[in-house]
Amino acid sequence: MEAEIISVGTELLLGQISNTNAQYLGEQLAALGIGLHHIVTVGDNKRRLKTSLRAAWERADILILTGGLGPTQDDMTKETVAEFLNLELILDSASLKTIRCFFSRRGRHMTDNNIKQALLPKGGIALPNPNGTAPGVWLEYKDKIVVILPGPPFELQPMFENHVIPRLVNLLGDKHTVIKSRIVKLYGIGESQAEEIVKDLVASINPTLASYAKPTEIQYRLTAKAASDTEANNLLYNLEQKLQARLGQYIFARDEETMQEIVGRLLKKHNLTLAVAESCTGGLVANWLTNVPGSSRYFKGGVVSYSNQLKTTLLQVPTEMLHRHGAVSKEVAEAMAAGIRSITQADIGGAVTGIAGPGGGTSEKPVGLVYVAVASNTGVYSRCYQWHGVREIIKQRAAQALLNLIRQHLLEK
Amino acid sequence: MEAEIISVGTELLLGQISNTNAQYLGEQLAALGIGLHHIVTVGDNKRRLKTSLRAAWERADILILTGGLGPTQDDMTKETVAEFLNLELILDSASLKTIRCFFSRRGRHMTDNNIKQALLPKGGIALPNPNGTAPGVWLEYKDKIVVILPGPPFELQPMFENHVIPRLVNLLGDKHTVIKSRIVKLYGIGESQAEEIVKDLVASINPTLASYAKPTEIQYRLTAKAASDTEANNLLYNLEQKLQARLGQYIFARDEETMQEIVGRLLKKHNLTLAVAESCTGGLVANWLTNVPGSSRYFKGGVVSYSNQLKTTLLQVPTEMLHRHGAVSKEVAEAMAAGIRSITQADIGGAVTGIAGPGGGTSEKPVGLVYVAVASNTGVYSRCYQWHGVREIIKQRAAQALLNLIRQHLLEK
Repeated sequence: MEAEIISVGTELLLGQISNTNAQYLGEQLAALGIGLHHIVTVGDNKRRLKTSLRAAWERADILILTGGLGPTQDDMTKETVAEFLNLELILDSASLKTIRCFFSRRGRHMTDNNIKQALLPKGGIALPNPNGTAPGVWLEYKDKIVVILPGPPFELQPMFENHVIPRLVNLLGDKHTVIKSRIVKLYGIGESQAEEIVKDLVASINPTLASYAKPTEIQYRLTAKAASDTEANNLLYNLEQKLQARLGQYIFARDEETMQEIVGRLLKKHNLTLAVAESCTGGLVANWLTNVPGSSRYFKGGVVSYSNQLKTTLLQVPTEMLHRHGAVSKEVAEAMAAGIRSITQADIGGAVTGIAGPGGGTSEKPVGLVYVAVASNTGVYSRCYQWHGVREIIKQRAAQALLNLIRQHLLEK
Repeated sequence: MEAEIISVGTELLLGQISNTNAQYLGEQLAALGIGLHHIVTVGDNKRRLKTSLRAAWERADILILTGGLGPTQDDMTKETVAEFLNLELILDSASLKTIRCFFSRRGRHMTDNNIKQALLPKGGIALPNPNGTAPGVWLEYKDKIVVILPGPPFELQPMFENHVIPRLVNLLGDKHTVIKSRIVKLYGIGESQAEEIVKDLVASINPTLASYAKPTEIQYRLTAKAASDTEANNLLYNLEQKLQARLGQYIFARDEETMQEIVGRLLKKHNLTLAVAESCTGGLVANWLTNVPGSSRYFKGGVVSYSNQLKTTLLQVPTEMLHRHGAVSKEVAEAMAAGIRSITQADIGGAVTGIAGPGGGTSEKPVGLVYVAVASNTGVYSRCYQWHGVREIIKQRAAQALLNLIRQHLLEK
């Protein structure tokens, strides 16, 4: 089973946006064991899109088109597909109803150009789009599958996962070799350092092991190819055991799990609450924690003490301590953690203070110097880090370091 | 003058890395006024690469290939180009010398497979690569230009800027046209509603106007093609004036500017300080504000009052008010804004409370209901929104809504 991706959009050719949809779909297709040999990007141009459709039609079984489903004139993907296949466009009343609701729910006026978003090539099935007005299309025609998806990633991804993958899986039936993939996430070790430890595993052909360094963690992608789920899972299990044995102390999560989900799960398990005091991360830790649905059950909230004034007035950090040690210090980090814990009556108080840059660094306290601290009924302690990188990267590393310190604290319970 | 990009690499098809080179090159070509109508991604496969070369050879004057210049067996771009054009590969002794130096400088042993990196299709010119071992290739053959560049962006970009752009410019000679682009960002109007107002401008060929909807804003991309910078800038200026006249009330930023940068600039201009109280956004507003370097000058910080307890203890929201109106209400939003302003002594207090979902919604207070409020020395007021979408999208829309309310407040000063 062979797929081809056709990304439609002049903004992609002009380099105004990056084609993240192609990467996302490539990853998803690989996980399904569906071959992908061509990704083609064309602009909002009927003639060139038709030429690309013709080429793809000859070499692929599944054509996946992204972009060009908007209400505007330059959005013409569905129209061009319909012309290419000599299918008329038919108004899908259900989709039109959904679009009308989309606007009325927002108390916004629906303009006529939105009506065309409810048009489908004859025989096509509308794929729901909870995050936008344009439905996707699933079209089975002459032994081929044509899938049309909206351009915005936050519309495309849930649509693909909820409405395309299930159809593809049941299309593949038995005749597919399973490709199963798992991600193992490490914190506290460098990529090359880890590489040395698993060199031999990285060299193996099946299952494969590939590392990917993110600013806040190292990800290992384990991928196994086999005739059955069980077989693939066994290959993955055995490889993961080896990783566990060699790098276990650094592994904190698997697959889609994030550090904040792990922290949340541990808090629920021990029935504990958390509050955080943030200086250099400026709310990023709280933001990550509250991205987890249901986090209100264990996360009380926090204080972003960006100014020294708030450190003293809200977090009860002694002014004298700020003067003697400075805002970026072990003492202040620990006082912030104890302070947020006492004013929120949370079981655990976390704190982070540092210099995110680009300004504010000195020779003895350079940009990238960060202290994270945890306070609990057993006392308060902290760790110091020195990173390099731009402001947002240092914020992310600092946030992850605090979450990891909290995680380790909870694991000792 | 027409270019085509062929990105070579199985890792691109598997979605293991994003094709940032294509975006970079698209941007560069647009700036040079060189047309780009196709970007094709193929794996490390000779047959398919040849097919892509054939198609590109028919429709483009300049073929730009990226990736597949490494020392390993699956790196075969130069070999395939040579075969496709029936040119032999010739060892470039200068390049070989450079590669040897590259290794000796790093005290590393050069393995034989690196020798093949010094091979060039006959007639090709080696493009120096200070950041890696693989030289690029500039080949003029039968009225076509073939450019071969290494995959790693930090090798490709300097090579393109220092050795390809000068050659392209002098190739273009006089017929060199400039393409200039500008982005105008709108808040508070839907894409299709805006489209109705600027239909005629979207239909124009030069300059072009294209819209792109993000969860938190609408972006209009103005692109002008002309013989000179001045001419292009004039076209952009005139189009922007028309947009300003028709949609000015919704325009909040241009080009790379973000809502939080605009808010920061206005705060500095009026020499005012800001603090925020966040419920459903969970720190996202503070995080965005502190992504701006130098924000500590005007941003005092804030409180993430995720639990009702913190709303009363830290933000001084009356318990009775919470009981009567609920945490997600006009009254509580305004009380939070007044509360954060008074406890931080900031000039302006911003607040947001809502239901991000997926849980917590009721029939009268559904998921996506959000109140934002601003408090200042002139009093406090709020706005109510009802959005749809997943948790993180609602958080982003709520954060942007608060920042916009603060921006509008500052504009009235």
